[in-house]
Amino acid sequence: MTTTTPHPLNHALALTSSAPDLYQGHTTPDYWNMVGPYGGITAATLLQAVLQHPLLLGEPLSLTVNFAAAVAEGPFTLQVTPVRTNRSTQHWLVVAEQADASGAQAVTTTASVVTAARRETWSVSDTPMPAVPTPAQCAQAQRAFRSEWLQRYEMRPVTGPLPTQWDDSGHTSLTQLWLRDAPARALDFPALAAMCDVFFPRVWLRRARRVPAGTVSITMYFHAGAALLEHTGTGYLLAQARAQEFRNGYFDQSAQLWNEAGQMLATSHQIVYYKE
Amino acid sequence: MTTTTPHPLNHALALTSSAPDLYQGHTTPDYWNMVGPYGGITAATLLQAVLQHPLLLGEPLSLTVNFAAAVAEGPFTLQVTPVRTNRSTQHWLVVAEQADASGAQAVTTTASVVTAARRETWSVSDTPMPAVPTPAQCAQAQRAFRSEWLQRYEMRPVTGPLPTQWDDSGHTSLTQLWLRDAPARALDFPALAAMCDVFFPRVWLRRARRVPAGTVSITMYFHAGAALLEHTGTGYLLAQARAQEFRNGYFDQSAQLWNEAGQMLATSHQIVYYKE
Repeated sequence: MTTTTPHPLNHALALTSSAPDLYQGHTTPDYWNMVGPYGGITAATLLQAVLQHPLLLGEPLSLTVNFAAAVAEGPFTLQVTPVRTNRSTQHWLVVAEQADASGAQAVTTTASVVTAARRETWSVSDTPMPAVPTPAQCAQAQRAFRSEWLQRYEMRPVTGPLPTQWDDSGHTSLTQLWLRDAPARALDFPALAAMCDVFFPRVWLRRARRVPAGTVSITMYFHAGAALLEHTGTGYLLAQARAQEFRNGYFDQSAQLWNEAGQMLATSHQIVYYKE
Repeated sequence: MTTTTPHPLNHALALTSSAPDLYQGHTTPDYWNMVGPYGGITAATLLQAVLQHPLLLGEPLSLTVNFAAAVAEGPFTLQVTPVRTNRSTQHWLVVAEQADASGAQAVTTTASVVTAARRETWSVSDTPMPAVPTPAQCAQAQRAFRSEWLQRYEMRPVTGPLPTQWDDSGHTSLTQLWLRDAPARALDFPALAAMCDVFFPRVWLRRARRVPAGTVSITMYFHAGAALLEHTGTGYLLAQARAQEFRNGYFDQSAQLWNEAGQMLATSHQIVYYKE
């Protein structure tokens, strides 16, 4: 008899369902960040609940996740509601809850998801992948800070790595890196969603100062369909992020993810809290 | 006795409340688009419901609106739920419903809103306003297509105006224009939210071909606080939008809005359906 250990991402995404629209999951230490799970794994898990809902039509088109409170170690429930089904799009709301200190259920995370049936049309890319060295030409990053989830990705920085000197010398917010799951895993929508949040806080880079920071809300637009994800397989993605505005405790970040062939897989945006 | 006619935007934003968390509004012909209200006015109205909720804390930080179905002429209800209140942020869900053809209530629109208490911190802009001619140097656009809501804005295109020849000659998706309410009205959060959706579909510009198109989901990040909006007053905003990827029936759009002084007020993103 042979047993296989599931990939850490599959383990994190494992959900059970006890009633229609209701799913149960459990946080995993594999993707732990500093005070809760890595935000990308929370986003991926909420998307996963929609993807395994029996009424699902189509593939993910957009996902917005609002991080209302830190997720604690332990079980959580997901209420998944298909609020409207049209001919080619379907709209979903997801509400994640955990028991709070008093034992009452409290909302930790909310999400809206649009899934869509897509068909081939006129298409064009207006944001070509930048010219960068190949993954093999970029050295693998050492884990830069003590968060377990960093071990779940192979990261090969191209530009804008985590500063090594916190000396207020920052002048840019641009990061580019090659990226894939570690161990390698064929790309699917939850994996891509998780990767959209892979960037360390832009304020750390822009200031070369490490201040408390955390995502408040993230939105992802999926440009790839399942066939393109399958074609991308275990290849690297080029992930790029930059900020637009840092103002009074919050900054925004825009990100793009391409496969090695230069095909745009997803664009993403987030608003992030930071402390002086 | 003197009577004054309310500004069309105030008229559109008028809501009554019959029960806690429940608001009623009515569509207005002033902001009518082709098959329903202008998306920006729907976004502004959902935000307005949060802003007049008695439990509101702070000012708008982010707003995501999902257009699940066309809104019909007539009344609508808004269910406004403060799902989580933290020390400095508050998370909201808004669900808009209308009676469908059978008389049953059906969801037309959903939104999530984050409001936040902001305080002055280290701040920097990484996306300076582009150098463009002043509003007075840019001619006012004539109404380019037959939608009533276009009359509610004074638009002065800088670059990327609506094509005048639909001949497949397009090569860019960038539009810049100076913009303000018509008649002029002091800027507030609902007005700014409405302006984030002011751009005609990027696919029309990129292709120089007019195809059916409509926003599926829009997200806005507010970088300005109330004091900066008040300072901006009735001045023009420079609004800029470009697409990143057009793929198989959906494209994404990124937008920035600055005041005349070059201060970033909001950044916005949307995913838009288009037909071949």
